[in-house]
Amino acid sequence: MIVNMATNATEEQIDHVVVRIKECGCQAHLSRGEERTVIGVVGRSEQHQSELEALLAAPGVDEIIRITHPFKLASRNFRPEGSIVELGKGVSIGGAEVIVAAGPCAVESAEQIGEIAGRVARAGAKLLRGGAFKPRSSPYSFQGLGEQGLKLLREAADKNGLLVVSEVMDPSQIEMMLSYVDVMQVGARNMQNYHLLRALGESSKPVLLKRGMSATIEELLLSAEYIMSGGNYNVMLCERGIRTFDTYMRNTMDIAAIPVIKHLSHLPVVADPSHGTGRRDKVPPMARAAVAAGADGLLIEVHQDPEHALSDGAQSMYPEHFAQLMDEMRVIAPAVERRIARP
Amino acid sequence: MIVNMATNATEEQIDHVVVRIKECGCQAHLSRGEERTVIGVVGRSEQHQSELEALLAAPGVDEIIRITHPFKLASRNFRPEGSIVELGKGVSIGGAEVIVAAGPCAVESAEQIGEIAGRVARAGAKLLRGGAFKPRSSPYSFQGLGEQGLKLLREAADKNGLLVVSEVMDPSQIEMMLSYVDVMQVGARNMQNYHLLRALGESSKPVLLKRGMSATIEELLLSAEYIMSGGNYNVMLCERGIRTFDTYMRNTMDIAAIPVIKHLSHLPVVADPSHGTGRRDKVPPMARAAVAAGADGLLIEVHQDPEHALSDGAQSMYPEHFAQLMDEMRVIAPAVERRIARP
Amino acid sequence: MIVNMATNATEEQIDHVVVRIKECGCQAHLSRGEERTVIGVVGRSEQHQSELEALLAAPGVDEIIRITHPFKLASRNFRPEGSIVELGKGVSIGGAEVIVAAGPCAVESAEQIGEIAGRVARAGAKLLRGGAFKPRSSPYSFQGLGEQGLKLLREAADKNGLLVVSEVMDPSQIEMMLSYVDVMQVGARNMQNYHLLRALGESSKPVLLKRGMSATIEELLLSAEYIMSGGNYNVMLCERGIRTFDTYMRNTMDIAAIPVIKHLSHLPVVADPSHGTGRRDKVPPMARAAVAAGADGLLIEVHQDPEHALSDGAQSMYPEHFAQLMDEMRVIAPAVERRIARP
Amino acid sequence: MIVNMATNATEEQIDHVVVRIKECGCQAHLSRGEERTVIGVVGRSEQHQSELEALLAAPGVDEIIRITHPFKLASRNFRPEGSIVELGKGVSIGGAEVIVAAGPCAVESAEQIGEIAGRVARAGAKLLRGGAFKPRSSPYSFQGLGEQGLKLLREAADKNGLLVVSEVMDPSQIEMMLSYVDVMQVGARNMQNYHLLRALGESSKPVLLKRGMSATIEELLLSAEYIMSGGNYNVMLCERGIRTFDTYMRNTMDIAAIPVIKHLSHLPVVADPSHGTGRRDKVPPMARAAVAAGADGLLIEVHQDPEHALSDGAQSMYPEHFAQLMDEMRVIAPAVERRIARP
Repeated sequence: MIVNMATNATEEQIDHVVVRIKECGCQAHLSRGEERTVIGVVGRSEQHQSELEALLAAPGVDEIIRITHPFKLASRNFRPEGSIVELGKGVSIGGAEVIVAAGPCAVESAEQIGEIAGRVARAGAKLLRGGAFKPRSSPYSFQGLGEQGLKLLREAADKNGLLVVSEVMDPSQIEMMLSYVDVMQVGARNMQNYHLLRALGESSKPVLLKRGMSATIEELLLSAEYIMSGGNYNVMLCERGIRTFDTYMRNTMDIAAIPVIKHLSHLPVVADPSHGTGRRDKVPPMARAAVAAGADGLLIEVHQDPEHALSDGAQSMYPEHFAQLMDEMRVIAPAVERRIARP
Repeated sequence: MIVNMATNATEEQIDHVVVRIKECGCQAHLSRGEERTVIGVVGRSEQHQSELEALLAAPGVDEIIRITHPFKLASRNFRPEGSIVELGKGVSIGGAEVIVAAGPCAVESAEQIGEIAGRVARAGAKLLRGGAFKPRSSPYSFQGLGEQGLKLLREAADKNGLLVVSEVMDPSQIEMMLSYVDVMQVGARNMQNYHLLRALGESSKPVLLKRGMSATIEELLLSAEYIMSGGNYNVMLCERGIRTFDTYMRNTMDIAAIPVIKHLSHLPVVADPSHGTGRRDKVPPMARAAVAAGADGLLIEVHQDPEHALSDGAQSMYPEHFAQLMDEMRVIAPAVERRIARP
Repeated sequence: MIVNMATNATEEQIDHVVVRIKECGCQAHLSRGEERTVIGVVGRSEQHQSELEALLAAPGVDEIIRITHPFKLASRNFRPEGSIVELGKGVSIGGAEVIVAAGPCAVESAEQIGEIAGRVARAGAKLLRGGAFKPRSSPYSFQGLGEQGLKLLREAADKNGLLVVSEVMDPSQIEMMLSYVDVMQVGARNMQNYHLLRALGESSKPVLLKRGMSATIEELLLSAEYIMSGGNYNVMLCERGIRTFDTYMRNTMDIAAIPVIKHLSHLPVVADPSHGTGRRDKVPPMARAAVAAGADGLLIEVHQDPEHALSDGAQSMYPEHFAQLMDEMRVIAPAVERRIARP
Repeated sequence: MIVNMATNATEEQIDHVVVRIKECGCQAHLSRGEERTVIGVVGRSEQHQSELEALLAAPGVDEIIRITHPFKLASRNFRPEGSIVELGKGVSIGGAEVIVAAGPCAVESAEQIGEIAGRVARAGAKLLRGGAFKPRSSPYSFQGLGEQGLKLLREAADKNGLLVVSEVMDPSQIEMMLSYVDVMQVGARNMQNYHLLRALGESSKPVLLKRGMSATIEELLLSAEYIMSGGNYNVMLCERGIRTFDTYMRNTMDIAAIPVIKHLSHLPVVADPSHGTGRRDKVPPMARAAVAAGADGLLIEVHQDPEHALSDGAQSMYPEHFAQLMDEMRVIAPAVERRIARP
């Protein structure tokens, strides 16, 4: 940590900061420039961290600058070679193969999920996505089929050799979901639901953690740290669009977050161009861009009849266009020394 | 809802949209301009809402524009005269008096909370704030004293004739908290934790719902709707700063949200200039601004020794400065036909 | 400047950075912590500044942190007591009196500007605002009356004892405008039009510099520095709303920028709640909030017939409501030890 | 345009709006729903546009929704087949070939620009970029070599069979620059410098118009409209990153803007991953992503000695890495039915 004193800070103000740093069990390195004094805090003190941060408002202090990242287990240093997360049935993410999860926003019926599962499997997807519990901004919208939806999802996946990824919304659902899904998805709205994150840290089931709508990359990695500090290192991170002033799209997809996260962390990164754009015809360019930028996986909404979908119809691709997109991505992957398996 | 067709939309494309609107149980009003055709959807269909929205991606459609607000119980129309929420001990919010809640970020000890309670009560605060469960972005930070913190908070409040407001983080904590607090606070990170919102809708305990860091006002009102649709109409909304490109402050306090929410909704609006700024010396100007803009209440962090606070020290005011701020606000309130009680 | 090395930086990488710092004429202070090495750069070198910044991308470098503000003349240190800018006719801004400029978005006719001038003068305004050259986002919109507009503005102001503020868009207009206006306004879109800023630095005419839609406060102060480095210290800064994800209002008015700028700079700060909100009924709450937060002046759009205004009708106040707002602000000003003159 | 009346709007309020619409020379189509009345405005009236917009603040009006895009010449409808802009020497942009412009941020010397020109030409670039007039946020930074820089740029380009693109900052520079450059670049800070845009519309020299830091896509297209309405249709648009809360990168590159602009407009789209990221190692992933998303061209900063560059060193690529990036992009282009020429 560095304490940047104001240019007109007095000696007493500087002394006060130095005393407080020492009381917090750290050393103070003074560097007196022509314009101002800068105080380096050497040593760490979890216990006194918040007292050190409170110095921001001490008289004569201009700024406090954090130097170390607050995440550890999620940091690239922890596993410089990168993590490969095993998802089951021989599928893993983080290696040379780019893994694709596809399926409807929500499970609606056995017929619906059955047909979609077959179509995405034949196009090369390895996981079937589908919501059984839907976080909807309005209490009056369709909220999902619940456990029955998970059963249908599991059956459709098994019939087509796919794994299952589905969203968990509350700690109370975890136990029941463990028997149906291969990957537990945490939605953007729950990225900082710490009770949920801690509870997921207690199992070893892989977790796909979505970035909150206005979360910084550091906050995303700190949320991963919550899960990992419980012992569950099987975490994937997902970029799904952030909120900006730009309103043409549902969100602004932060493609640069993909290489940035790969640089700061060892965890695999997945891109969700469906929520990232909100419009079917913009999903392919952003899916291709994500592969070109180095994503380890993709999460794509596909529906055989989007105009009758119970949610997210506008951003769901038709199965035939999804198959074509898979082919386009197969051309791109070798440019980044990756590949996408053929079915 | 209005469907704005592209300028080059074909007759088939227009027909398709009209057919779909009728299949969804609504009427289609065509308005053919020189440049383009605009289709008004008359009638509402909760059941087919998502199918109508999926038309965004239908061929020939440029845009879909929602005309009605999706919140009802939270809407100003529902109670044009405005809501006054009774908090207990004769204190209510939403009327002529601006209500102030003050106290530390977190309860740390009996001595700490006892002293602060006395100081803020003598300055004119009506509620004592203090966290017992702290949502911290790092799993390694101080997480609060739990139920013991609530006991200390209650005792300190009772001794000084104050009410208690404290944050609830998970549905599993509600039952226990009901006996200690007068107002349940939902933090910004949990604004869209729908399980928590629904659970709070089942009691009649007043709820202070904070706006998420990047939530639109409509999303905030929809979250209030989740609570109200369960039968609990005792909801207050809280502006606490949004996330923008501006980094000098912890957040950008959206003061205009205060009159906007008052216009759209009947619910009382509270401002939190402590989180809204993150710096002690910027709390008074923003607290004064909030009163001048029409806030019904304020939530302010006060600590008798901010440099040793276990959290949020930099944004906590000293008790004597808080008392001075109360006096400044007493000067401003009459400009908006309000008042702030003297102790 | 501080160079934050990566945790896995090698000794060669550290040495390289140290060598480069010395080559740039500065000293390098190493601070080796447990986790990483931090290098303080002591001394300044305008000449080599960009070379130092290029170290951001040197191998083993994690981050570069600037410690000093790049503005000097605009800095509070330059004049710790604050600047009072003389505008003419005995009116100055930056002292105990809050100065109000009011008038239409654009000058439309002698009758229009004449009537408005009389109304705002009688309510207590000290300056008449009105555009003669209008920056419009569409080339097909009304672009202003040009020099003829300035003449009408001057006449109307003189008749009512008011000063004149009007926008300059290009260096080629300055010479001509000098004889008509008392304050040259630089619009938000031109905040970084450096040719214009330099040209304004060559006269001594007061300049009202508006903050760009997404400009940081530091960028605003650097733009003021462009004007001041030419010798013209008569600069006022104007907060007029920034662009965020929030779309209900035209802009998000950053009220906190007022005390922040007052802290960082000695220059007077003006608030423009008309552009800051875009809606007539939201102007009064934001004008009151600006006074409560410490603004030195206000810029408010007033039109006697907003529904027939040639621009910005929706955000223009009726004269009678403007007079009422002036009274409300007169109640608030004493809370911050200011006053607003009666006509 | 659509006027969305409030749910509690009175008949008089509705009548008033209808009368005003007719006075503005348009027709009013009323659609009375259960909840509210919606009024469609049919017909267009440039002349009365601002009066129609002022209805936003009329009593009983909730919202005004614009239905038509305000740009015409820049719209895709104007040239559904897309524009191919001829740049000279047989090079054109907008067709099957993705065109790359590369070079230093600023021209520094004959040696510097000469060497870089050779290296980027041999890697396959078609244009040489380099600034002679630099818009710098600080008045104390290097401001460019001026006309001498343009001479050096021209010579280096001619020696290597390249075209020249360089930034123009003020109308007064245009005449002189015409003889040196093939493409006039308008920087992000000048996107709404309307005097400059109009002046560029009077020549036929191709213009590369950069998107402002917080400009919407519509505003970018309206700025293009300023140039085109003067008769110069040779306009290219450039995405170079927008400003968001995300601070790890210099900007957030809005890759989705590429397909969105291609959809709304016929003009070619160029991506600038150097300014879009600000860090050398993040330029390749974003350049590849831009090609995968359908960009027509790229603008990339290359310097043979970035650590001694006079500006933007941290984001400038080494020539050898640039050559490697060109090869990676050659793999990707066929996935979108494009190609990148070999030198």
